[in-house]
This record gives sequence, structure tokens and C-alpha cells, in this order.
Amino acid sequence: MEESDDERRTWDENQIRKYDIKMKSVPKHSFVDPIVMEIMLEGRPVIITDSKMVEPAAKWNLKYLARHMGNTNCNVIVSKDHNFKYYDDKCVQKAVRAKFVPPHKKVTMKIGEFVDKIKEMSPGGERLYLQQALTHSVGTEIVKDFLQFKWDYIKGIQKEMGWGSLTSNLLLIGMEGNVTPCHYDEQENLFAQVKGYKRILLFPPEQFECLYPHPVWHPHDRQSQVDFDDPDLTKFPKFANAMAQEAIVGPGDVLFIPNYWFHHVESLQNGGYTVSVNFWYKSKSTGAVAYPLNATQKMAIMRNVEKMLVDALRDPDEVGPLLRNLTLGRYHDFSLPPESQ
Amino acid sequence: MEESDDERRTWDENQIRKYDIKMKSVPKHSFVDPIVMEIMLEGRPVIITDSKMVEPAAKWNLKYLARHMGNTNCNVIVSKDHNFKYYDDKCVQKAVRAKFVPPHKKVTMKIGEFVDKIKEMSPGGERLYLQQALTHSVGTEIVKDFLQFKWDYIKGIQKEMGWGSLTSNLLLIGMEGNVTPCHYDEQENLFAQVKGYKRILLFPPEQFECLYPHPVWHPHDRQSQVDFDDPDLTKFPKFANAMAQEAIVGPGDVLFIPNYWFHHVESLQNGGYTVSVNFWYKSKSTGAVAYPLNATQKMAIMRNVEKMLVDALRDPDEVGPLLRNLTLGRYHDFSLPPESQ
Repeated sequence: MEESDDERRTWDENQIRKYDIKMKSVPKHSFVDPIVMEIMLEGRPVIITDSKMVEPAAKWNLKYLARHMGNTNCNVIVSKDHNFKYYDDKCVQKAVRAKFVPPHKKVTMKIGEFVDKIKEMSPGGERLYLQQALTHSVGTEIVKDFLQFKWDYIKGIQKEMGWGSLTSNLLLIGMEGNVTPCHYDEQENLFAQVKGYKRILLFPPEQFECLYPHPVWHPHDRQSQVDFDDPDLTKFPKFANAMAQEAIVGPGDVLFIPNYWFHHVESLQNGGYTVSVNFWYKSKSTGAVAYPLNATQKMAIMRNVEKMLVDALRDPDEVGPLLRNLTLGRYHDFSLPPESQ
Repeated sequence: MEESDDERRTWDENQIRKYDIKMKSVPKHSFVDPIVMEIMLEGRPVIITDSKMVEPAAKWNLKYLARHMGNTNCNVIVSKDHNFKYYDDKCVQKAVRAKFVPPHKKVTMKIGEFVDKIKEMSPGGERLYLQQALTHSVGTEIVKDFLQFKWDYIKGIQKEMGWGSLTSNLLLIGMEGNVTPCHYDEQENLFAQVKGYKRILLFPPEQFECLYPHPVWHPHDRQSQVDFDDPDLTKFPKFANAMAQEAIVGPGDVLFIPNYWFHHVESLQNGGYTVSVNFWYKSKSTGAVAYPLNATQKMAIMRNVEKMLVDALRDPDEVGPLLRNLTLGRYHDFSLPPESQ
């Protein structure tokens, strides 16, 4: 991989991974267009252009970051292939952890070491993904840049959307072709692209049934079980019904990823490294609840049922069989019409 | 139907309804045999003979009851066929109640009227089942008999089993051939047979998955959805795996029906009317819970999940689809071995 500070301003179809998924495009609008807030208030994704929201980060190339973040112990994920499927082995039951084989390693290293390593890496070999929270530990210069972000604009969105507090900013430095497989987060995300191009496939909460997220108590909680590279339609038949909303973002673009929306993220192939910064916000606190509940609220309920069950049964392996006994064959007469199932 | 006070002391196979269900027998032991309490403490059904537990009720033929309960407004169920599938339309959501077609009528009448009616009824026509709580309303003489039951013996069982309070006694007067379809109760039941013969098919909580009880918020809560007369194995495939424990009880016999055990009850065909009295007790309060949970505890958890969901969603019709989304395709790797599913 060759480091280049000349940003690629364009990309072509060959840089995009091929998946057998129906797609439409995420709308893309200038930050001055009032439609941006209209779309966001409807809880739908949008690409916001020209906002210069994280303009001071435009100079965050590898050389600059190595110089100014040199002392930080950065969190880096090491994967044998292009997929970086997040896992959390802290908060899960011992019984699950014992059986779980982590798909990659989590290490810490100085950014200089990271830069050296990604320059040496060969196609098809091991890959790295740096994912470091922007805290004071990243050093004075980076913090200075961070404080120069367009906070008036950012806080304006936060206020108009009624979001709670900003919980974290994650700096992501990915190798070209890296993939963060399909998952959802429990927060609102303003995803600011700084360097290179990323393609994001988004799926609304209504498509939960098409994406089969792991059980809540699993280390891969919130991650789809479907391997987009080789989907098993026997195990996951409704994945065939998945309909993605595609966003391709480059330097200066900000993508709004709503709470509970599934998203797959790829750094374009042969596009050089990518730098992104995300802004995670707590969702608007629900006031009076309206019925019928929406798909996001139902996902939250499903999470609670699973948590309650693993808590009550004390054994994650008993949750699936209990849910099947509870469900299978008992709701024939209480179904939605077939087309909506 | 001919009334006869000569009790049939015997019955033959032709009086038993034919169902395509595998069966074994419920053990039957004299009340003096210590094995009775051993079986009960294991939470399994047993027929207790010779206990004379409700001996004063032995004289409760229709004539005696008509004479001494004459003023009581009795609850009587009127069914077009032999099945009396219990339903509760009080505590359910309006949306369900609106769609629900009650399978029979609930009326009140004096016992004299009940006796006249069942004498007039013709085979294949309308049927009646009297199900009246034994409260003070049933009259002095019946209460006197009731107070002469062997309460020392009954309370001895209650104490040894650690049960809570006696919540109710139901007097059941059924026409020959009447069937109470398969259901479970949330209490312990000492089922005392007084006149005529009844056949009870019991299924342990482990067979929940074979019996497909209606959703908890349905008027038929606790009732199996499977029609034993004509089981739909496409909708309810695991019913083929059901294994009944059969008890045939006659005058003087007491059957212990444990909490959460499914049971189908039939008055033998061509056997005259039947009289039974049941004793419903609150279950032993659970102290320290042991893991893994047993099937009864899991049934209680499933009830809670369903109650919570209809409460959260406010629409019973949304519970099934949500449970299916939560369950289907998401637990492939967390299954019990196929033979136990």
C-alpha cells in the first residue's frame, strides 16, 4: 500500500465490492439545504456535503497523525482478511465466551508502528484497522484541531434533533478494502469522512428480520450473522429480501447513520487508506409513546426480552430453545399478511 | 340420558374416546402407601385410592343435589358438541375479544332446571356442564357435607407438599361423553371423583412444545390449540411427539394434577353423568432457585414474556410477528440437539 497525500477525488465501480443485494441511493444534499434536517427528523440517513464540519482534520494524513499522536497507545484491530467484525467479550456469559473464537486480535500500538505496518502489508494478507477514541490522550495538536471543528453547526444539529449528549468521537484509520460488516449501534451517528472514500450500505430497523443479528448476549451482539461475501440463504432466507440504501462518501462528506440502522462500511479497494471521525450521540429521549410502536422501538423491546431471558435462565444456550417453544406453531392465527413477513 | 343412582363400578374400552396419542398409565396407589407422597413430591400425577377424602359427597346424586342446592344460581356451560373449551373474555384486549367467537355459552340456572334439561337431551345435540364453586351459596346441607370432608388428610397433603392456601373448590357435574379439552392450570389440583368415571390424559410441562397453547392474552389462554379429535399436524407438527399419561378415575379416587401439567378430561361415554370436586391450591412458593430451571419454571417465564410483550406493544396481533422476528434464523448455533427439539 502506497501512502499518498494526494486525495483521490474520484472512484470507479471497480473499487466497490460486489454483493447480491438490491440497492437504492442515500440522498445527498448540501448542508445549506433545509431538506437535510427534514430527512434527519424523519429518522432517515442523508449525506451532508460542504459543511466543513471537520475541516481542521483535512490535514490528518498519516505523516501529520504520526507526528502529533506519536505517544498515544492506539487501539488497532488485526484481521486475517478484509472483514473486521466487531466483538465484545467482556460483558458476555462465561459459557459463551468459552466457545467463542474471536475473529481477530485487538492490540495497541503507537501510530508510527501502525503506519510502518500498513505500508509493509501485502494484498490478501493480514490487515489492520485503527479505531481510537479522540480523548485528551491523543495529544495537544490533535485536540486543538478537534476544538476547531464547526461545533456551532454540530451542536445545532444536536439541538434540532433533540439528541442527548455526545458520548464519543472515534477516529478510524482503515486500510483500503477494509470492511466493517453489517451491524447496528444504539446511538445516533454523524459519520464524517476525512480522507479516502468509504461505501456504506444502510438498512432500516424494519429489515431486522432480513439481517438476523446475533443474540444479544453473544460477543457479536448487534452484528448481522449473514456473511455478505457468501450469504447462506438456507439459514437466513429473508436476507434475499434485504434492500440496502447505499452511500459513498469522500473527504468533507458527513453521513447521518440513525440509531438502530444496520450499516456495512467498506473502504474502497485500491483507494488508499481512509480516515473518518464519527460523532455518537444519545438518542432523543422518548416522551409520550405512540402506538403502534415503530421498528426501532420494537428492536429495543427484542433486546430487552433477550436480556431478560438470559438473566432468568442463566444459560444463553437455553434462550433459543425457549424462544422457539414460545413461538413456533403458536401464532398461526395472529400473523401479519405473508408479504410483510 | 337416564339418571341412575346405581353407580357403574366398571367401564370398558368402548366408553373411552379414541385419540392417536401415545400413552402410558398414571400410577395408582392406596392412600396408605408412602409412595403416594413420594410421587407427589416429585411433582408427578398419581391416583390416590381408598382415602374417603370426600366420602360425604358420595350421596351427591342429582336428586340430592337438586333438593339441597335448589336455590343456587349455578354456572352452566352450554356447548353444541362434546367439547367444552374454556375461555375467559374478561381479561383480554378488546381487539382480541372483538374477533373471538366464543365456542359455547355461559349461563346460570337452578340445578333443578339443569337436571331436567340433561334428561331431555338427545345424543349429538346440545350438551351442558355444570361448574359451580362450592361457596356458602350452595346451601346449608351441601356446606355441612363439605365440612365433613376428611380435612385432616387433605391438610396433611397440603402441609407435606408445602402448598399455599386452598383457593377454591369447584363442583363439576358433567353429562356422559363431555370433554374438557387439553389445558393447564396455574395451581395444584386434587381432583376428587365422586360419581361416574372420568378419563384424564396428562402431559408434563416438558411437552409444552407438543401442545401449542394459545397466546397468553387470548381468551383461550392455557388451552392447547390442538384439536385432539382432528389434530392438524401441519400447523402443530410436534403434537405427533406428545406422550400422554392416562388416568381413569371412579368414585372415591383422587387424582393429583400438578401445577402446569396439561390435562384433557372426559366423562366416559354411555356412563351416565359424572360428579367431581376439585381442590385448587397455590403452589409452593419458590425459595432459592436452582439452575437449570425446570420446565414448569420455563413455562412461567414464557407467560411473563408474552404478558410483557402485549403490554409493551399494546396490540396482541403484533406479538407473534415480533416473536418470530426475534427467533427465526437467529439461534442456529444455539440449539438443543435435534432429537430434543
